[in-house]
Amino acid sequence: MDAVSAHARTLDEGNPFAARRGRFRLPDGVIYLDGNSLGVLPAAVPERMRQVVETQWGESLIRAWNEHDWIDLPQRVGDRIGALIGAAPGTVTAGDSTSINVFKMLAAALSLRPERKVILSDNGNFPTDLYVAQGLRDLLDKGHELKVVAPQEVEAALDDTVAVMMLTEVDYRTGRLHDMAGLTRKAHAVGALTLWDLAHSAGALPVDLGGAGADFAVGCGYKYLNGGPGAPAFLYVAPEHQPRIAAPLTGWMGHEAPFAFDLDYRPAPGVDKMRVGTPPILSLSALDAALDEFDGVDMAALRAQSVSLSELFIAEVERRCDGLELVSPRDHARRGSQVSFRFEHGYALMQALIDRGVIGDFRAPDVVRFGFTPLYLSHEDVLRACEILEDIVATRSWDQPRFHKRAKVT
Amino acid sequence: MDAVSAHARTLDEGNPFAARRGRFRLPDGVIYLDGNSLGVLPAAVPERMRQVVETQWGESLIRAWNEHDWIDLPQRVGDRIGALIGAAPGTVTAGDSTSINVFKMLAAALSLRPERKVILSDNGNFPTDLYVAQGLRDLLDKGHELKVVAPQEVEAALDDTVAVMMLTEVDYRTGRLHDMAGLTRKAHAVGALTLWDLAHSAGALPVDLGGAGADFAVGCGYKYLNGGPGAPAFLYVAPEHQPRIAAPLTGWMGHEAPFAFDLDYRPAPGVDKMRVGTPPILSLSALDAALDEFDGVDMAALRAQSVSLSELFIAEVERRCDGLELVSPRDHARRGSQVSFRFEHGYALMQALIDRGVIGDFRAPDVVRFGFTPLYLSHEDVLRACEILEDIVATRSWDQPRFHKRAKVT
Repeated sequence: MDAVSAHARTLDEGNPFAARRGRFRLPDGVIYLDGNSLGVLPAAVPERMRQVVETQWGESLIRAWNEHDWIDLPQRVGDRIGALIGAAPGTVTAGDSTSINVFKMLAAALSLRPERKVILSDNGNFPTDLYVAQGLRDLLDKGHELKVVAPQEVEAALDDTVAVMMLTEVDYRTGRLHDMAGLTRKAHAVGALTLWDLAHSAGALPVDLGGAGADFAVGCGYKYLNGGPGAPAFLYVAPEHQPRIAAPLTGWMGHEAPFAFDLDYRPAPGVDKMRVGTPPILSLSALDAALDEFDGVDMAALRAQSVSLSELFIAEVERRCDGLELVSPRDHARRGSQVSFRFEHGYALMQALIDRGVIGDFRAPDVVRFGFTPLYLSHEDVLRACEILEDIVATRSWDQPRFHKRAKVT
Repeated sequence: MDAVSAHARTLDEGNPFAARRGRFRLPDGVIYLDGNSLGVLPAAVPERMRQVVETQWGESLIRAWNEHDWIDLPQRVGDRIGALIGAAPGTVTAGDSTSINVFKMLAAALSLRPERKVILSDNGNFPTDLYVAQGLRDLLDKGHELKVVAPQEVEAALDDTVAVMMLTEVDYRTGRLHDMAGLTRKAHAVGALTLWDLAHSAGALPVDLGGAGADFAVGCGYKYLNGGPGAPAFLYVAPEHQPRIAAPLTGWMGHEAPFAFDLDYRPAPGVDKMRVGTPPILSLSALDAALDEFDGVDMAALRAQSVSLSELFIAEVERRCDGLELVSPRDHARRGSQVSFRFEHGYALMQALIDRGVIGDFRAPDVVRFGFTPLYLSHEDVLRACEILEDIVATRSWDQPRFHKRAKVT
């Protein structure tokens, strides 16, 4: 064993999450560095799905809404996510997609600043957030402007025209981590509200929405939270805004008394008014089961492991591979739980890696991205991934026609 | 065997769907007359869910988007639903909730009639449709009016101020069936567009959106389509409107090239522009598997069975039970696949029925509602339900404190 392998093994011996690895179903022969795109299947999910499908739905049928308290599942799951992101009970609800939740939160935020017209965002935001803002701007037709600047220019762009600063905390492409507390403070200083997208934060690093004074937030259930493909998303409304905002999507589950079947809409109290349609019980249940894997997890310890894994990865890739340029911030304090490199033939390189069992992903035009999920990833995995990457780069084995063929989803 | 039982048995012998009953998991001791609220579990769903969770998600992980073509699942499921409602391929997409789809379709419709301000609906519409319209009206803040009339007054209320006539074809409470083709024609005659909610139609009776010239439609996956609790909903956009409408909820899955990750939104062609966030693969897969049960089903034959079941139910209830007043239209041509009765102590009556294994549901303030789903219901079931109802009414066994206790979900 060489010195690096010995080092990796030593690091793994101190891994407080080593015992949790067995609670995830990792396919044989795969090193999965894409938990930031779709989390691995938690071992408890299949049995929970069987129960929900065969027993709750199959046996209880319509009675399950009461017998299994399906009706409050969005709130229960919301509170469990809230515990991971510094959100008090009753401030988070789970459901719909991240995009739809961005729409709800952005519309709510704009309604609190009717005299201001600027939605400030950055070009590292995930495109769907920007698309939703563009659609809302056009729908409202009240002269709002979506101002998109570079991430490092956000602070300077904050002024008293800004109604909402809408940012994704961790850049999906580069892993760059915004200073949530600092930017929120600065936004508030000019009277702007904040909407944080936690898609690459929740379950990946410590988040403290309450401590940061964030106004609104949304996030994703299928990345670090391991809720399954297209899992329900979540949203957060700070307690002080809950009584003051109107829901733009006013479905019956956000009604004060859904089962009174009144003809007139009356908002439910609190964050519940942001619920819309009938909750998706199957996928919410999968997410609920997946959250079991976060029970007892110290997010600071998880962050320490994530940093350790990604630092090892950066060091070894830079030591072993020519032509890969680090895109992510080198300072781990400014980086989320992913590391990205630029490589001219990034698409083909990623296909070659996947072919060898190292799964990361590619983001156009030339970025290869690797996510680090300490609950099911070891330093030895990371080192093995580096060895395979080194071999592919050294032998140019990415340069085969089959690795250049574009798939529908990249 | 008495004459009625013999009659029921004879009717069942001619049931073309008798062999399908075994393809649904009916709990022992239950006569389920609530498939219009939550459809029964199709026997094929558990295995499909196991595959999707354990093999597709568990083994393929992120690769499943291509390997199992998850990305097009909303369109594939949409086309399968389309085949049941007279919608051409490429006009229906599955996803989100009915409420959210009402929002999308109503906003799209209003954008095509900018000079008109009236949304016409009726008080038999499911409340969430009205709530969504109220929310959209307030959000747009352009002087729209939601005009809600009695169902029989809709036709007279159609005039050249109406932008959209938004109706649920089958009244969730009474089962009253609107004349979709006739009302659509009359709406078009005054220049109004139509938005049909098929929540209690799809999978329950023949629907011909194309033939009726309907403009927009939405519907529910968890009622007669048996897609599971909170299953994805669907929406329909007539071909001629597809190039002309803008999506109000502009998420990345409705983008022309989602994986180009452009900063600017450009709508996808056709109905795909109405997609929003990442599709909920687990629940979409359950719905997809459930739709297998409609393969080869002649909707006219299904309708004939539904009428036969509900006619028997009405006749026997009226013959056997005092105090129940038929709320549904007596003429089956004007009725969907459910039958409702008014009963002063409707809530307690339904609880007592459920306690005896006859599951229908209650709609405030005093309606007991029974749905008829020919794929898994026989005339003998219906007759047995009538016998139990007769006994409960005759002995006033509903009048026990435990049957009056209100549950959270009624």
